[in-house]
Amino acid sequence: MADQVVLLDFWPSPFGMRLRIALAEKGVQYEYKDEDLRNKSPLLLQSNPVHKKIPVLIHNGKAVSESLIAVQYIDEVWKDKAPLLPSDPHLRAHARFWADYVDKKVYESGKRTWITKGEEQEAAKREFLECIRLLEEELGDKPYFGGENLGFVDVALIPTYSWIYAREKFGNFSVEARHPKFIAWAKRCMQKESVSKSLPDQNRVYEFALRFRSKLGME
Amino acid sequence: MADQVVLLDFWPSPFGMRLRIALAEKGVQYEYKDEDLRNKSPLLLQSNPVHKKIPVLIHNGKAVSESLIAVQYIDEVWKDKAPLLPSDPHLRAHARFWADYVDKKVYESGKRTWITKGEEQEAAKREFLECIRLLEEELGDKPYFGGENLGFVDVALIPTYSWIYAREKFGNFSVEARHPKFIAWAKRCMQKESVSKSLPDQNRVYEFALRFRSKLGME
Repeated sequence: MADQVVLLDFWPSPFGMRLRIALAEKGVQYEYKDEDLRNKSPLLLQSNPVHKKIPVLIHNGKAVSESLIAVQYIDEVWKDKAPLLPSDPHLRAHARFWADYVDKKVYESGKRTWITKGEEQEAAKREFLECIRLLEEELGDKPYFGGENLGFVDVALIPTYSWIYAREKFGNFSVEARHPKFIAWAKRCMQKESVSKSLPDQNRVYEFALRFRSKLGME
Repeated sequence: MADQVVLLDFWPSPFGMRLRIALAEKGVQYEYKDEDLRNKSPLLLQSNPVHKKIPVLIHNGKAVSESLIAVQYIDEVWKDKAPLLPSDPHLRAHARFWADYVDKKVYESGKRTWITKGEEQEAAKREFLECIRLLEEELGDKPYFGGENLGFVDVALIPTYSWIYAREKFGNFSVEARHPKFIAWAKRCMQKESVSKSLPDQNRVYEFALRFRSKLGME
């Protein structure tokens, strides 16, 4: 029996993008279901009753949620193609550390660059750029965080690239001016079809962020 | 050459306790170094330059930080004894989900039960007890979250038991009155030497919390 794979997602979600990329890297066919987060589907509520959040991967009827956990699941199930985590335990821990860092620091400060104002926004920009600086240092001279190929940290981090234009525009700053190496890495990732087909256009994300800010009463 | 294992820790840290339990379950001998968090050692700063936090496991000179990542590392390196994560990918994802839940919800609301006052404290108690209720539901009729043996979720969660008395005392509530099944599970874990030797006495943790509150200017 062929695998039945369903992805419950929301198109601007960087967490959902991680699963799209991982599934594409593995060559897994799946049904994509875009959720209306103001009116969540019974399937979402039933598949992730604890957090009630996307993304959720449903594989042969069994649900996996929390994006980094789902990416690891994908890597373990479809292990014969495009391994995302290295096999050495120390290198695995190292990759998990940086993916966790992305979760704890990059998305949180990144969000505050476009959703806050004044001093709070300036602080968010400094924090976000400091994250990028540290990540550049970790990348070093490798083409990808995973080495010669896309790895776990690349999959965790690259979705932030689809949000860069919105952040720069609302935050009035340029990531490329400060961190050209980071942008070069992002463009390298975007040359892979698994990534470029999984990330929405930056302008579309900007328009989405514009509507979101307007709902919050920000001009 | 024998493995050289060093644990940089701080005795009341529930995150450090996770590593102590995992190492004890695996029968790994290690050197325990208790850190003074107001005056961190050069070894800690050098081993975890990003977060500068305990616990850090140093195995043959290589550092691993972030407690759940380090527990997985221990499970992968010393894989022949007392497996903590199941081998089936879906069961692994399920265990990782609940360990992540413990990280995101239990410690955070648990801390607020003894460090806040008034309505904020009441809200924290409600949230903490709701976490315990959900975890009881997940435990079901199994002796441990890991099934017949201690597993990843047990290792992630049981350190909270050493803090229960302090929380109950400062929060003026009883976990056992509401959730006897949770306490029965905790006592079952405590019958294992790997757990009882890794957790400090509840009174000692209470005294620590008392001093901490007094530094914050709480009576």
